Amino acid sequence: MLTSCDNNKALFLGIDGGGSKCKAIVMNENNEILGTGISGPGNPLHGIGQATDSITESALLALKDAGLTHINLSEIYAGVGLAGVNLPIQFKKMQEWQSPFKGLFLAHDLLIACLGAHHSSNGAVIISGTGSCGFSCIDDQEVIIGGHGFPQGDIGSGAWFGLQAVKQVLLSLDGIAEYSIMNDVLLAKLHCADATSIVEKVAGKKATYFAQLANLVFDAAEQGDNIAIAIVTEGAEYINSIARVLLTKMPARISMLGGLTIRLKPWLDKNLQEKLAEPLSPPEVGAVLFARKELAMQQSLSVVQSA
Amino acid sequence: MLTSCDNNKALFLGIDGGGSKCKAIVMNENNEILGTGISGPGNPLHGIGQATDSITESALLALKDAGLTHINLSEIYAGVGLAGVNLPIQFKKMQEWQSPFKGLFLAHDLLIACLGAHHSSNGAVIISGTGSCGFSCIDDQEVIIGGHGFPQGDIGSGAWFGLQAVKQVLLSLDGIAEYSIMNDVLLAKLHCADATSIVEKVAGKKATYFAQLANLVFDAAEQGDNIAIAIVTEGAEYINSIARVLLTKMPARISMLGGLTIRLKPWLDKNLQEKLAEPLSPPEVGAVLFARKELAMQQSLSVVQSA
Repeated sequence: MLTSCDNNKALFLGIDGGGSKCKAIVMNENNEILGTGISGPGNPLHGIGQATDSITESALLALKDAGLTHINLSEIYAGVGLAGVNLPIQFKKMQEWQSPFKGLFLAHDLLIACLGAHHSSNGAVIISGTGSCGFSCIDDQEVIIGGHGFPQGDIGSGAWFGLQAVKQVLLSLDGIAEYSIMNDVLLAKLHCADATSIVEKVAGKKATYFAQLANLVFDAAEQGDNIAIAIVTEGAEYINSIARVLLTKMPARISMLGGLTIRLKPWLDKNLQEKLAEPLSPPEVGAVLFARKELAMQQSLSVVQSA
Repeated sequence: MLTSCDNNKALFLGIDGGGSKCKAIVMNENNEILGTGISGPGNPLHGIGQATDSITESALLALKDAGLTHINLSEIYAGVGLAGVNLPIQFKKMQEWQSPFKGLFLAHDLLIACLGAHHSSNGAVIISGTGSCGFSCIDDQEVIIGGHGFPQGDIGSGAWFGLQAVKQVLLSLDGIAEYSIMNDVLLAKLHCADATSIVEKVAGKKATYFAQLANLVFDAAEQGDNIAIAIVTEGAEYINSIARVLLTKMPARISMLGGLTIRLKPWLDKNLQEKLAEPLSPPEVGAVLFARKELAMQQSLSVVQSA
């Protein structure tokens, strides 16, 4: 009879911890996903305790989903990609965590997204979801473009599109900008009667709130609304600019990721659209690839040291 | 010997309660300012208790400054202009306050600013300080343009200029926008080495924080910096637009108020610059004029009713 230790030798956990949720997978040696788990926010910027709880919970859920509840976390290596750990102070805090895993390999979320998208450490990704960002990793040289957050950055992101919609509708309702079909759509969506009530609804809201309004800009632009077209064109031009900077690094592949990809892609430079390759796997798979590579490097180092 | 009641028959308190401070004056019948007082935030949006405390404190300080400490607040009428009470719910909350004054006449801050600027109820004001707004009052018909808050509105305000500076510097440091002299100025001002540290400094900051960065945009624009000139031109064009809407109402006078006036005015439409009249008095004087008018109306009504 095989013990659990024999069974799980080649098992790896891959974890993608973002601002709203933490996703985990458990993978076997053939890169087959045996189970998945989703828990709460995994971004240490919003609290280390919450992040480590989410990571542990998502991992346990993935094992349960795989029917592997007899295996302990202490028997498996985990690759963990987290938003925020590109900041040294956050990386250090997370490294200090006494994790329940056999070993934890920590990377930032952009790196695991890139590894997942390309199954290679030579590639670039453009991300547009709630936020926006560009990243390339070529010969271990990493470049981050944008990702500066809301409202000071993240142009071409969901939050940015939503905020632009609100701004333009307020200008239009004041008689300063021309009429837009977004006026009626936004008033209806927010159950508002006028500009004042829109302001009461949106005042102080965070990026995730505004990101929920992004689709109405694309809907209006696709219907030929001039103001919406101007917003989409400006957002797309920023994404084009990120791509142009990344392409100067000559990545082997470039992909676009994030919830807004499907809406934004048709508005990008035709040349860029043609260059965009489909992501091969999601970021949590990238986290497993990262962990495998790091573990192999550790083991080869220890072989050298003991030789 | 005159009693304090004889002395203060024609005394009025004028109070301008804003988001950062509350200013009070005490005025005699000849519209002479006898004393002034300044206290904390007077905007009920940030808490009714704090607002009413600030109003009372500023009034007591004004009486003290005037050497009138023997007079009780209960012997004097007060005109009080508050940011936020254009929203009916805030107006109602403030009206429910058992004020220490003989009587309290409540108006929103834009109305007392307009009355102060023109000493007349026929006029318009454009305000650019931390926020931005346009307002006209003609034959008791009030129109508000803008004033939608940060970051969804308040274009051409201090907060907006500061945020644009941060946005453009981040784009420039990423290699997406051209070099701007604002890059060096902002990095130095915030004691930052790079884009990441700027983001750490400004993340989650409020309008008042960004407003402190507005002047560096004007400084750079005046030195011929293209990016700064584009920002100032866009902000000024919004102020021009507010003015164009207000001027269709045919106000007898139009003035510009707020801390950014001196920087913005040279960038406005020449026609508009020529039309802008100097404000005659500050908003707290407008609050006294408002209170006098309301009291006179009350008294004439009571004469009619008792006749």
